[in-house]
Formats: sequence, structure tokens, C-alpha cells
Amino acid sequence: MSIVEAPRVAAPTPHDLERWRQADRGARPARLARLRERLERESVQAYFGVRRENTRYLTGFELADGEEKVAGNSGQFFVSADEVVVLADSRYSVQAAEQAPDARLEMVYQDLASRWPELLASLRPRGSTAGPVTRLAVEAGFVSHATWQRLADAAPDVELVAAEGWVEELRAIKEPAETERIQAACAVADRALERLAETIRPGQTEQELALQLEFEMRTAGAEALAFEVACLSGPRAALPHGSPGSRGVTAGEVLLFDFGAQVCGYRSDMTRTLFVDEPSARDVLIYAIVQQAQEAAFAALARAVAAGEQPTNRTIDAAARLVIADAGHGDRFGHGLGHGIGLATHELPSLGRLAPEAPLPSPTVFSVEPGIYLDSITGVRIEDLVLFDTDGRRFERLTTFAREVTVVGA
Amino acid sequence: MSIVEAPRVAAPTPHDLERWRQADRGARPARLARLRERLERESVQAYFGVRRENTRYLTGFELADGEEKVAGNSGQFFVSADEVVVLADSRYSVQAAEQAPDARLEMVYQDLASRWPELLASLRPRGSTAGPVTRLAVEAGFVSHATWQRLADAAPDVELVAAEGWVEELRAIKEPAETERIQAACAVADRALERLAETIRPGQTEQELALQLEFEMRTAGAEALAFEVACLSGPRAALPHGSPGSRGVTAGEVLLFDFGAQVCGYRSDMTRTLFVDEPSARDVLIYAIVQQAQEAAFAALARAVAAGEQPTNRTIDAAARLVIADAGHGDRFGHGLGHGIGLATHELPSLGRLAPEAPLPSPTVFSVEPGIYLDSITGVRIEDLVLFDTDGRRFERLTTFAREVTVVGA
Repeated sequence: MSIVEAPRVAAPTPHDLERWRQADRGARPARLARLRERLERESVQAYFGVRRENTRYLTGFELADGEEKVAGNSGQFFVSADEVVVLADSRYSVQAAEQAPDARLEMVYQDLASRWPELLASLRPRGSTAGPVTRLAVEAGFVSHATWQRLADAAPDVELVAAEGWVEELRAIKEPAETERIQAACAVADRALERLAETIRPGQTEQELALQLEFEMRTAGAEALAFEVACLSGPRAALPHGSPGSRGVTAGEVLLFDFGAQVCGYRSDMTRTLFVDEPSARDVLIYAIVQQAQEAAFAALARAVAAGEQPTNRTIDAAARLVIADAGHGDRFGHGLGHGIGLATHELPSLGRLAPEAPLPSPTVFSVEPGIYLDSITGVRIEDLVLFDTDGRRFERLTTFAREVTVVGA
Repeated sequence: MSIVEAPRVAAPTPHDLERWRQADRGARPARLARLRERLERESVQAYFGVRRENTRYLTGFELADGEEKVAGNSGQFFVSADEVVVLADSRYSVQAAEQAPDARLEMVYQDLASRWPELLASLRPRGSTAGPVTRLAVEAGFVSHATWQRLADAAPDVELVAAEGWVEELRAIKEPAETERIQAACAVADRALERLAETIRPGQTEQELALQLEFEMRTAGAEALAFEVACLSGPRAALPHGSPGSRGVTAGEVLLFDFGAQVCGYRSDMTRTLFVDEPSARDVLIYAIVQQAQEAAFAALARAVAAGEQPTNRTIDAAARLVIADAGHGDRFGHGLGHGIGLATHELPSLGRLAPEAPLPSPTVFSVEPGIYLDSITGVRIEDLVLFDTDGRRFERLTTFAREVTVVGA
């Protein structure tokens, strides 16, 4: 193995949660300073954000995944040269004041467009040396076109500048307290699958097992799931994003789990393809290819760290893909090799053939998840999260559940 | 009581799920016909949708809540005069073919903009009497501004028309098989809280109880939650959208649960404010006011159904709000009275002071949820779902958990 396993950490305590939130608060000025450098470079005077992960990263205000849909404008925010402003309606104002104590709170309730000119004017407080807002960066990938139009119409003198990835690029570089939380989420997930694996018996359904795995995570430190647990058996494992169904686990087949935990906002993501009772020679062979493909990516990353180099996202994808192509399954690996992870399950960097080629950021955390999918027959994917840190000369696997052929239900 | 309780239905069986999906498939041509009338009226030749609820409603293809974020273009769709086209990448193609058998499948993987002109051209199949697509309706409230710009640039001759609410207005009118599922989701939630209520003891934390309530739903027929369970005790009940924390349940305080189940895509939503051990006179008085406010809304709705009239969303909100204002708490009820529910937790109609005034649709299902929130002191909300059907002369409460003062943990 060309990769070090990170030590598996204990379940998070209330003290950990408090410590991480304090670390975030301490890190926020530096995060904001980097964003403000970008604003300066792009000649915009302020930034309007709506993505919940960016809200938490820059202000501390926490919305659960999907809560944006009911939160309305609550959690949307401005960053200007002088301050951070968080919007909230009456349902969220107490929470916003508690979680974003360094921001100014503006009460907005379904009247954002009519309040827009006044809000923009307020970003230049009396005595500020900053000029008025004439160009405003807006998260164009997350603001709907309808909202964009309403805001553009509400203050026609202010040019809206489409900002994509400005905060996401910052988030790709992980601070130690962010990596700690991803590692803690990985450990919660590792332990959950280990406990579940001991109890799996043929005849249990995918749905039952998915729910049981969720409960194992939720009762042992996960504040939420990173995403719905995927549990797919036999031929259904060929669906790279299938949902668990009523199919029963069957001896001689594979059993694929793709799942992740969330700890203090940060997420894990892991896939294991287990073997129920006696593995078939076909499935074991495919497993070996996928395992070798993952090893090839690990090796390329390890070499880069040892040499202090920054390989590109496509180089690493290609290293794994070559192994699968050489084994004759090139067309059965339809997705990219991996993705960054943090406050979002999928974030930068994106490792794949189709992603724009770019050096990997560092330190960063991402998944390495090659797979081979034989339609209606079987599927194998192995997914681990790794910490990649060239300056710190660290390259570690954060998910520590066994990668070897693992038989359950025997 | 001015409202009939719907009979509480049993937990859904696999047969029910199959029947409901067949009902959806049978209903889809009529749903599409209504959308096509709108396209005709608006002089657009086709519709491009991205909202997952609309995808399921019009095509049958199912994405879990939040899965859009990882699904990319999978699940996005066109409706033209001749056909329905569903986009999917390799991860989702098998599922799309299974769940949307009446649609044409187009494989798209991160290359939507470059494929856009060809996809639009394909909407006018050889032999079609329809003209080429020169105006395309696009879900402007759900397509990001960045995507809109890329699509507009990719086919500059095709005018993109901002469509908001076109499918949502159809979804507000509920078919019998849709109401059945909401009712089934309500019954799952009712039973879950009844089971949980028997076990609540002072000292348990909000988080523990929220998780337990989730498990009660998930193991008794809920395929998913409608949203994260809110469990708030004592002064925290004054946070209308707070998340469960580590606070322990305390005798003499209120304990508020806001939660919902999902059954075959359709959702429930209910709030109950319970009393732990001995209720305080203050809390009981507030509870009585909220209960009367809810009764006032029920009475207004019942009168409308009896008279075969369509009251407006604002009339009903006002009926409940008046009771709370008369009791001196007008400024402690900061949110609207209710919202439609179905494939989404919050959908049309919107009952509130700020919503554009409009007659209620029928038949429809929505929440009636007045509340009084005394900052840092206590909070009470009572929320039920009702079926409102003027033509069918039906007005029923679908959530059947007791609305009376309910003491737990004694």
C-alpha cells in the first residue's frame, strides 16, 4: 500500500463541536480577507452569496441541507470591504444573531427585491473609505435566473457580476479544523459499517440495511447524513446512483454501500463493495481490477507528495482509468475518479476526464472512487477519502474500513 | 370541531406503491395536456424543466430530495408538443428508462450547453406538425442564472422565456392518488408521535427525541422524512425553525415537534406542542389561543366548502390571525398561516398576508399552522394538514393526532 491510514479518531464530543466552531470563527477573518482580495481584483465592491455552504463558511450561520428551500432569504449574505451582512426573517433572527455574532443582521422577509437598493446603500457605512457599490458579485450558479432579473431590475445602476467558484476555490483548501471534522465523520462511518457488517444476513433487504446503517451513524456521532445511504445488491450494484429497494441480499452476490456522515457541518463519503457468503470468481476479479485502479491513483498521489509536486486532477484520474482500460473495462467506468468534500459532499477539486485540467489544491480532501459497472450483472466501486497535502508532506487515507475482499453474511 | 377527521389509513404496502405509480403513469397524459395548453397560450413550443418535483410529476423519473446537486443534468427534461425527453448521464440511464418509460431518453453528461442546439432541434421530430422551437419556456426560478446564460449563448436564435409556477399551479390541484399518499404519510407521522409520546421522559435531549421520532417514521412506512425533525423544548420553542439541540426536556415546559413523513414521493407536515409533566398556566393559555386561531381558519374553510365557494388564501390567514391579534399577540405570529404540500413540503397555495391574493385551488391539501412565539420564554404552534375540496364538498383534517392539551413525561 502506497498510502498511510490516518489514525481513527473517537466520536465527537460536545467539547469538540464547541472547539471546531471557535476555530471557524477564528479562521473567518482570513477567509474573508482572501475573498476581499478577489473582489478587489475583479473590481467589485461587494459579494452577494446564497449558497448555504458559503454562508456557513463566511458567516457561521448554519442551515441544514435543503433548508434553503424553506428558509427564503434567511442565510443569504453580503461581504463588503467593511463588513458581513446576514439576511434573516423572524423565524431565523435569533439563530442568526447567535451563530453569526460578527455579522450585521438585516431582517428580510419575502421583500428582498424591494429592499435591494437600500441594502446595497447600507454596505457603505458612514465614515467608510469604500466607494458606493456599482459592481456587485453575485453567486450566479446558485441564484436563480428569476431572482437575478428581479435584483437587476430593482437597482439598474448596479452591475451584477456573475461570480462562480470564488468561495468554492477557497473552500477547496482545508484548514486543520476542517480536516479534523472530515476525519471524524469518516470514523463515524467506518465504525457504523463495521457494526452493520457483523449482522448482515441473506434475505435482508437493501432498504432495511440502508436504514440500519443510517441509524448506526446517527446514534454514534453523525449529526446528519452526508447523503441518503445507497445499498445495492447483486445486479443493482451496476447502478452507480441507485436507491435501496426491496431486493433481498443474496448469497454469492455483491453488496455495495455508498454512504457518509456529517460532523459539525463536514462530511465523509465512502463506498465499500462487500461479498455475501461465497464470492463469485467473476466478482472477485472485477474487485481486484478496481482495487488496483485505486492503488494506481494512490501511488501517483503519493509520488507527488513525496516530490512536493502538484499533479493535475486529470493526471490522477488517468492513472486509475488506465488500469481499468487495460483490463478491458474502459467503457464500464463512466464517471470521474473523485471529488473534493467538506461542507458539501461534492466540491472542488473535481477529478475526471471532463473537468477543466488544473493542479490539485493543497491541503485538500477528496474521494478516490473507481468503479466497474456491468449492466444488469454486477458492479464494484471502492471509494476512500484522502488528505492530500504537498507542503505538509502528508498523504493519508481518512476512511479506514478494510479495502480487502470482505465477506459478510456467511 | 368544524372539521371532519379523515380515517387513519394503514401503513403503505408494496402493492400500494405499485398502484400509486401506475396511477401517476395514467394521470400523466392529462397533466401534460394541461401544461401544453399553457405552452400554446404563451406561444412557446416547448418547456425545459429542472425542478425534481416537476420531473417526477411529468415524467415519472425520481430523484431524492437534494439529489439534484449530484445528479447534474440527470432528471432535467423537455416537454414539447410531441413528446417528453428526459436527460440522464450513465449513472442514471437505467433508472430513467425504468421510471420514465413514456419519455425519450437523452444521454447528457456535463455537456448540456454544447448539446443544446441539437437537443432543441430534436424536439421537432421528422413528420411532426409542430414548428421549430423559437421560444422555449425555462424554469427560471430553478435554473441558475449561470446556466441560463450558457443556454442562451448556445442557441442565440431561441428565445428563453422565464416560466415560474406553470407546473407548480398544476401540482396544487391534487388527484385522488396524490391525496391518498399525503394521507398515508400523515398516518405514518401520527402513529410515530403517538408511540414516541408514551416514552418521553424529562432529561431526554431534543436531539435524542428527534432521532427517535425519525426512526419511528422510517421503520413504519416512511421512505424518507419530509424534512429534518424539529424538536424544541421550553424557550427554544420560540424559534419557529430551530434545530434540535442538546437541551434536556424539562417538567413544566412545552415540547414542540414539527415533522413529516414521505410516502411514495408525497409528504406530510404536522406540528404538535406537548406539555411535559405539569403544564404552566401561561403555556396553556397561549395554547388555547393558538387552538382557537386554528379553529377559526377551519370554520372559515368549512363554511366555504358547505357553500361551494372558493375563499382566498388571505381570507383564511386573516381569520386565524384575528384571533391571535384580539388576544394581544398579533406581533408574535410572524409567519404565514400555511402552505400547500405534496411532492414538495412547501408548495402552492401559500396562505399568508404577504402572498398575492388568490382563490384557493380545489381539490388541494395545505397546512393550517398558527403559532405564538414569546422570545426566550416559550412558543406554541399547532399544525395540521387539511384536504379542501369544494366541488367534492369535502373538508377533512388529514393529520389526526390529538389537538387537545397533551401531557407527556408525567
